[in-house]
Amino acid sequence: MTAKNRTRPNCSIARTLEIVGDRWSLLILREAHNGITRFADFRDLLAIAPNILTARLNALVEAGILERREYREDGARGRIDYHLTPSGEDLKLVLGALQQWGDVHAPRSEGPTVIRRDVATGEEIGVAFVDPHGQAVDSDNVNFEPVVGGPADRYAAWR
Amino acid sequence: MTAKNRTRPNCSIARTLEIVGDRWSLLILREAHNGITRFADFRDLLAIAPNILTARLNALVEAGILERREYREDGARGRIDYHLTPSGEDLKLVLGALQQWGDVHAPRSEGPTVIRRDVATGEEIGVAFVDPHGQAVDSDNVNFEPVVGGPADRYAAWR
Repeated sequence: MTAKNRTRPNCSIARTLEIVGDRWSLLILREAHNGITRFADFRDLLAIAPNILTARLNALVEAGILERREYREDGARGRIDYHLTPSGEDLKLVLGALQQWGDVHAPRSEGPTVIRRDVATGEEIGVAFVDPHGQAVDSDNVNFEPVVGGPADRYAAWR
Repeated sequence: MTAKNRTRPNCSIARTLEIVGDRWSLLILREAHNGITRFADFRDLLAIAPNILTARLNALVEAGILERREYREDGARGRIDYHLTPSGEDLKLVLGALQQWGDVHAPRSEGPTVIRRDVATGEEIGVAFVDPHGQAVDSDNVNFEPVVGGPADRYAAWR
């Protein structure tokens, strides 16, 4: 068994997790997707220690998921807030998948606190695997197939 | 601003993250979805310290995501391995969403190492928000709507 590649992982899941794979980062991103942009608001809503928040925000900016912008309230000095970039926006699906799993497998007796809805139709929205036509496919029918001869094709010895 | 509820979070995302919200747990689950069940194989494939692996496996069993089973190779003593439960199987969608984000936003120059495919048709599979008919909906059209009067309806002051 070769040693794990200590530089950039080959696996997309692992590379994503290097960037967002901790609870605080994902909770910060949940708030960002709720429209929160200001340090003090992230801090108060999450009850997160300021030094941890600073570190996570910096890492998310570094990773291109959040960007800093300056704002200025009347007569006050310029301040910085944090906005989702397009790659940050795309993490909404990861949040949705986590939320749906929690709705089903770790539910509250009082029911969900947040419902995913289509803004146009009001219909409830789920997260699913989809085929190239955008039609949902059952999870059991989806295989995560290593590219032959590639670095993920390392289970050959197990087959 | 009320203090954050220190017992079980109200938010499904937060409850899911309490259970799987760390990089090692999700990497262990990636391997489990690849058919890995034995301690030594998780350890070798992930290059994870055995004490961390033990702790994470115990937590995943405690959370009902993995279950222990006994196996016995000829003439040897009984050993324990770790299998996905139905709730563990359902985390495949979370892994798929993380993978898709990584494919798009943190790609390898050599291309993805794993392709999601439909086992019947061979078509490439993505992850998306879907409506009640199973048809993909654009992420921009999906709102995470707090249940009115519920604990997530705490941004009222911001509106």
